[in-house]
Amino acid sequence: MHGELMAAEMAQQPDVLDALIADAAQIRERVRTILPEPLHGVTFVARGSSDNAAVFGRYACELSGGRPAGLVAPSIHTRYSARVDYSGQLVIGLSQSGATPEIVSTCERLRAAGARVIAVTNDPASPLAAAAHLSLPVRAGRELAVPATKTVTAQMLILALVADALGRSGFCEEDLARLPQAVAEALADDERATALTAGWSACNRLVVVARGLMYAAALETALKIRETAAVHAEGISSADLLHGPIAALDAELPVLVLRGGGRTDSDLDALGERLAADAIPTAWWWPAPGLAETLQPIVATVHGQQVALAWARARGLDPDAPLGLSKVTATR
Amino acid sequence: MHGELMAAEMAQQPDVLDALIADAAQIRERVRTILPEPLHGVTFVARGSSDNAAVFGRYACELSGGRPAGLVAPSIHTRYSARVDYSGQLVIGLSQSGATPEIVSTCERLRAAGARVIAVTNDPASPLAAAAHLSLPVRAGRELAVPATKTVTAQMLILALVADALGRSGFCEEDLARLPQAVAEALADDERATALTAGWSACNRLVVVARGLMYAAALETALKIRETAAVHAEGISSADLLHGPIAALDAELPVLVLRGGGRTDSDLDALGERLAADAIPTAWWWPAPGLAETLQPIVATVHGQQVALAWARARGLDPDAPLGLSKVTATR
Repeated sequence: MHGELMAAEMAQQPDVLDALIADAAQIRERVRTILPEPLHGVTFVARGSSDNAAVFGRYACELSGGRPAGLVAPSIHTRYSARVDYSGQLVIGLSQSGATPEIVSTCERLRAAGARVIAVTNDPASPLAAAAHLSLPVRAGRELAVPATKTVTAQMLILALVADALGRSGFCEEDLARLPQAVAEALADDERATALTAGWSACNRLVVVARGLMYAAALETALKIRETAAVHAEGISSADLLHGPIAALDAELPVLVLRGGGRTDSDLDALGERLAADAIPTAWWWPAPGLAETLQPIVATVHGQQVALAWARARGLDPDAPLGLSKVTATR
Repeated sequence: MHGELMAAEMAQQPDVLDALIADAAQIRERVRTILPEPLHGVTFVARGSSDNAAVFGRYACELSGGRPAGLVAPSIHTRYSARVDYSGQLVIGLSQSGATPEIVSTCERLRAAGARVIAVTNDPASPLAAAAHLSLPVRAGRELAVPATKTVTAQMLILALVADALGRSGFCEEDLARLPQAVAEALADDERATALTAGWSACNRLVVVARGLMYAAALETALKIRETAAVHAEGISSADLLHGPIAALDAELPVLVLRGGGRTDSDLDALGERLAADAIPTAWWWPAPGLAETLQPIVATVHGQQVALAWARARGLDPDAPLGLSKVTATR
């Protein structure tokens, strides 16, 4: 069956998360030891799925740390060779392989410009880990399918722990302990994803909408669908959708809305009413019951993987090795 | 004819830019008087077309100012009510109307959190202007067509001047003086846009690709096409495209590549070769001759407006009043 590798790696997620949670106290402590004093801001360096994990980290770290957090534009450093001062910045480089040249060289440049650098990678012997003051290994085991799954949710959990090291992150030890089970429950029910994609069999486009912390899950769900099912899927915030792109929706362009069980749900509900009035086909994913809002995007990312896998299989594609992609993308 | 208003407002751009350039020295001086000392970073607050101008400003200001620059996530402030410290931050709020509630309230919150705030708006009597330490009016005259055109290029020019106030911005007075003429020359030739869209008459999707400074023009071109032509257009960086989304391109999804006449052209040329090998239909826009790289995105944004207008007309749509959009989008 197509996608055996991807499915097997998705199934490992509860164990991968569990192992990281066992080390949560140590991870937080190691982060605290290398923080700049004072902390001026947090900057993430990543591409692809790691970049989507970074979007989650950006919300979580600004909410807990209270200082501006954002994503780097690598070309400013690798193409324009800007002379920058990153003193006071915590820089977090994320890469499954730890080998994407522009991620490594941007982290090296920002370290030379005064930043404290953390590497979050699945290969602790990689150039990215070597470029950092602190390496926080993802420890997900080898990932062989081209679409990243278990490494992404593990990166997100590590970033939640980094946020926790910066201040009040909005979740407690009990919430953490509940996470692997919530992911296991999501994985146990893949019929929802199959039913959803069956309804979209005639579509080659999708818009995935969320807001706030869940925005990262919308971006990652869209990317996973693009990679595996070759569907032109796009993740977008509900507020951005209203500022223009909503004009290009139509009855053949379904919308998937991710509720997060928190403070942005009212925005999504209002959007849902408008989409219904415009007869735009809309499907909803609901948050995992009883889980802290900050951790919901990790479960939603697993849901998105299920949708991508089911859709790829329905289209007769093999998600383990999508046409035109390789496991390490060597952008500079 | 459809789009009379939009075309008329596009035609005013050389004059609007000319008037701002006449005040360039004064604008730079006013910015310098309100800069935080020391400057820790620059944060932009915007949605829609103004957000695309902000992406341009982000590159220009980090390149010249040498401190981290990025775009705010408004929900962190309006939905999660994060307790943040923005001391040392220059915050630049952009809104054509100056009335979008979340832009105004985010700027108010960041000001209360210690930031110095600049408002860039077409209405100097707006709530956004009132919320700022310094208001830099766009002075584009009333904009009546729903798709923003002259206010966007004027915002971009103001941000180039802000960047210039922060340090070495990569353009000189002669480059500035050349800009209105370069825009006028672009406007004088709308046959290229008509020919381009004629080739896409069967398409309802488009990907617009650029990298670095020109990335903002790709985002704005895509947004303008979505708003006016109801085509599902998406702007993306060439590096991001390679990290997954390239797998979802096909022969019915054309790609528009924006070269910028500078340090990211080699990335786009390499991408072009790969797209050609994959038989993906690709069109190219070329930079304005003899203009500084930093100012090229302003001319490219005008090209994008031409493509949007031509495509909307070819589809029998009226770009002046797209279905489902109003001039002020009241997101919170």
